[in-house]
Amino acid sequence: MSWTLDADQIDDLARGAAVLGTGGGGDPYIGALLAKQALRERGPVTVLTVDEVPADAQVAMVAMMGAPTVMVEKVPSLAEVTAPLRAMEEVLGRPVTHVMCAEAGGVNSTIPIAAAAMLGLPLVDADGMGRAFPELQMVLPTLSGIGASPLAIGDDKGNTAVLSTVTNNWAERIARTACVEMGCSVMISLFPMKGDEVASSMVPNTLALCLQIGRAITRARDANVDPVVAATEVLGGREIFTGKVTDVERKTSTGFARGRAQVTGDGDELELNFQNEHLMARRNGEVLVTTPDLILVLEHDSGEPITTEGLRYGQRVRVVAAPSDPRWHDAEALAMVGPRYFGYDVDSTRFDCRVEAMA
Amino acid sequence: MSWTLDADQIDDLARGAAVLGTGGGGDPYIGALLAKQALRERGPVTVLTVDEVPADAQVAMVAMMGAPTVMVEKVPSLAEVTAPLRAMEEVLGRPVTHVMCAEAGGVNSTIPIAAAAMLGLPLVDADGMGRAFPELQMVLPTLSGIGASPLAIGDDKGNTAVLSTVTNNWAERIARTACVEMGCSVMISLFPMKGDEVASSMVPNTLALCLQIGRAITRARDANVDPVVAATEVLGGREIFTGKVTDVERKTSTGFARGRAQVTGDGDELELNFQNEHLMARRNGEVLVTTPDLILVLEHDSGEPITTEGLRYGQRVRVVAAPSDPRWHDAEALAMVGPRYFGYDVDSTRFDCRVEAMA
Repeated sequence: MSWTLDADQIDDLARGAAVLGTGGGGDPYIGALLAKQALRERGPVTVLTVDEVPADAQVAMVAMMGAPTVMVEKVPSLAEVTAPLRAMEEVLGRPVTHVMCAEAGGVNSTIPIAAAAMLGLPLVDADGMGRAFPELQMVLPTLSGIGASPLAIGDDKGNTAVLSTVTNNWAERIARTACVEMGCSVMISLFPMKGDEVASSMVPNTLALCLQIGRAITRARDANVDPVVAATEVLGGREIFTGKVTDVERKTSTGFARGRAQVTGDGDELELNFQNEHLMARRNGEVLVTTPDLILVLEHDSGEPITTEGLRYGQRVRVVAAPSDPRWHDAEALAMVGPRYFGYDVDSTRFDCRVEAMA
Repeated sequence: MSWTLDADQIDDLARGAAVLGTGGGGDPYIGALLAKQALRERGPVTVLTVDEVPADAQVAMVAMMGAPTVMVEKVPSLAEVTAPLRAMEEVLGRPVTHVMCAEAGGVNSTIPIAAAAMLGLPLVDADGMGRAFPELQMVLPTLSGIGASPLAIGDDKGNTAVLSTVTNNWAERIARTACVEMGCSVMISLFPMKGDEVASSMVPNTLALCLQIGRAITRARDANVDPVVAATEVLGGREIFTGKVTDVERKTSTGFARGRAQVTGDGDELELNFQNEHLMARRNGEVLVTTPDLILVLEHDSGEPITTEGLRYGQRVRVVAAPSDPRWHDAEALAMVGPRYFGYDVDSTRFDCRVEAMA
């Protein structure tokens, strides 16, 4: 059933989205600012469940693309949020009627809210991943054969580029280089699809889940119970490590924030490897969790999600693993988002199995 | 007065265009192959002088973009030639009615002929430079305030990108990075303009001049007189050096073929610096000719133009200087194409003046 999203819900939603963002997907503070500003200026947005989207609707994703390390220093304006959708419409030859998220993340769950508010359009409660991944072809619609293009890019200067590509990997390659040249943080609109393609190809109810996670954290804080436990429960996840961040290596290269972090606790060491998002967690060298499952770093007491660009020496954190959408564990999907795609010579683990093995 | 261009004229035209290309603008053999194939398949093309273009015509340039070193290994197909124009039309919302050249050069004077033939459109006898320059904003229409975008790019895989940029320098920056990612040699369509903007902003009669230069070389060969002297006369130029190529340094970086060549003759040394095109000629360290004036390297006996990617150790060559379109010597133009833009800490020379000084 459709529901109404207003500015008062945004802080919880953005926090929950940053949890699902697994370290990426953008800073929730920036994302919340933008969405709240848009909702206050233009009023609440109607959110439709995937089964409520008319079959002939013209749906498109809106997202921010780039390195999170750059995003936090280049906050976009509301005018930038809508420019790529407008550029995409020119090439489509028809207006976009519904907006949706590409991924879950502090910015990438809230930017589409801002876009929907600015354009007066309904938002579809779905995203392409059920988490965040670093490259744009890494969405379930790619596995359904839906094209990422026409894909429109807009920067802070007012430049736009509209790509029509033969594969979604080419869309990623060309958009990424354009993104880097345009300042390493741009707005994009992509995966235009018909309403009847949404339900089967997307992850449903992500915005509702973000809100649920965010609220669980807020309520736990208010009730003086453990917010990390509360969030973990909503996710069906499991806490895998507690400790202090003792090392962070990070560089921004080819448009991504890449690096590793070390968490030390109780004589054990957890190594986290990331490319915008956390991709692998190893305890004392043993692989515990890998992409596509979710690896979340939460502040020890408050349960506040910490993005990979926000990791700092000395932070006390708890690391939680949670299962991804099961479709990500199919062979074709693992070829796209498994550890080997990112250059790690390990097989992907599967959270469900690990729970038993670790029990 | 309009004239008709058929396949029999192409070899002379491409050779003359390669002379004006000052080492860049693409290999005339490849350009001639493409244009002849298109003209034989589709019949001759009508060439209009700039004053014959209707005021409300929708004119656009067609060109190849990339490193000449890559172009010679990736000969485009005729299907690729027209794809960017079609992509541009989608964004313009109206058909392109007339095609023209961005620059003079072995490929970039002939690609628009192939495009006009394939699309059944008339060609305007004009180009944006009166020579070749390495970057796309370096055309006289930029100085008239005409935008390079919507600019469309098409690659050999079938990917296209359409840019709308706030300045022509941004068009160059974004298109260049996309070009590099798309394989370092792509087709582009750019500078869409109205018919009444053509006469004042473009260099007129370039195709006729290319044909005249090419014919002068062919006729001189047939008549056993000196082809270099014949070409130099048509250009109003002057031979500045004769010798043997004794050194060539060349690298393909950031989408350009950059380097230097040394020509040795009579105890003197001429150094040529290039970025796709020749930009500066220095004799024993003394600056003789600089961009924007034309520096041409012709084979010693045949007068065949040698492109910068065709320079080889041991070639016997004659180097000719010729004046550029006088508009290139305005201060604003020199800021765009003068030696300092390319990183040489020297003032630009002016060919007319040098003739007196050297006499």
